Amino acid sequence: MPILVVDVGGNNVKLRLSDGEEVRRVPSGPHLRPGTMVERVRAATADWAFERVSVGVPGPVKNGRLVDEPANLGGGWLAFDLEHAFGVPTRVVNDAAMQALGSWEGGKMLFLGLGTGLGSALVVEGLVLSLELAHLPYRRKRTYEDWLGTRGLERLGKKRWRAAVVDVVAKLAAAMVADEVVLGGGNVRKLDTLPAGCRRGDNERAFLGGARLWDSGWRVL
Amino acid sequence: MPILVVDVGGNNVKLRLSDGEEVRRVPSGPHLRPGTMVERVRAATADWAFERVSVGVPGPVKNGRLVDEPANLGGGWLAFDLEHAFGVPTRVVNDAAMQALGSWEGGKMLFLGLGTGLGSALVVEGLVLSLELAHLPYRRKRTYEDWLGTRGLERLGKKRWRAAVVDVVAKLAAAMVADEVVLGGGNVRKLDTLPAGCRRGDNERAFLGGARLWDSGWRVL
Repeated sequence: MPILVVDVGGNNVKLRLSDGEEVRRVPSGPHLRPGTMVERVRAATADWAFERVSVGVPGPVKNGRLVDEPANLGGGWLAFDLEHAFGVPTRVVNDAAMQALGSWEGGKMLFLGLGTGLGSALVVEGLVLSLELAHLPYRRKRTYEDWLGTRGLERLGKKRWRAAVVDVVAKLAAAMVADEVVLGGGNVRKLDTLPAGCRRGDNERAFLGGARLWDSGWRVL
Repeated sequence: MPILVVDVGGNNVKLRLSDGEEVRRVPSGPHLRPGTMVERVRAATADWAFERVSVGVPGPVKNGRLVDEPANLGGGWLAFDLEHAFGVPTRVVNDAAMQALGSWEGGKMLFLGLGTGLGSALVVEGLVLSLELAHLPYRRKRTYEDWLGTRGLERLGKKRWRAAVVDVVAKLAAAMVADEVVLGGGNVRKLDTLPAGCRRGDNERAFLGGARLWDSGWRVL
């Protein structure tokens, strides 16, 4: 039974079928509301057959439900019923958790998504824990996301941003007692070398994560 | 088969048998080395019969082994073989993780131990994740432990320390997307009211945690 995997990013929404190769994109942005997102996705996938949907959203999710509005999208997400709108069984997960789930290869893995915001999740065998490390204080009354997200990159410039990435990755890996760190998100390409103990993420892994969401061997908490 | 549970704190080492009621104490402190600890424990428990030992230590543990020296004890812990010294099968776990394991009642529980240092662990059904949140930066170039540990309490005074506890608990609970926070450690008694969403820990739960360490239904990572 094919699953439609919907990866809601800050700049665009990426779509793929669990048994397909083709990736389609529709626009996202700071004003994107969930009804608009579903309309665009339905229009872009009218010729695709699927019976389940996995949606990765850039906001805090608990037990399959958003518990706060995504910081970098428009409003109305908290109260919106995505399953009702898609009309098929739908699982909602934090976007970083979805890519983290697809990226796991072993051990205690910390995933950090360097995008518009800063996604985070911890994965061990059979379990994904969504985290919201982004909004913790880091330096000079700014948060990790203020430093490592896109606004941080713009403010700091590439050189200082890279130095901040190295420092934050080391601190958060130690805090989570992680065996490995996977760095994903669109801005990971702006790192020419990776900090020690890191593996480069791949956005494609989000689609594997979306498929694994329906695998009974995995829990997402 | 009785288990000896050894809870190594910053001020004393607490001992109890998994099937007993009596708690015994031997001294700890910033100069405590592991060989001394084992000698004191063996002397204090010479009349107790046990065939396994669980040891909770205030330092970062991965896969049953310390990966760094405990910050608030003496040296020599990293290289020391506790199992060899006790002469029976021995499991080593972070002290906060041990109390957290015994404190879990459901959901996604964050444990914070307000003691000499600041212990932390995350527990979900069947799994304990040791954390080391203590050494992350918090405010004014000081870490969470600098603010919430005993030195923070002494520096800030009770009133400002309590305000810091409320703020840090809210921030860390959000960052971990926790359902519940359990506040343990010796200094929790200095809080007259608990922050919202918090439950008071009980040091006795560390002994339950030490027994659960040998239960195959639980993994500690």
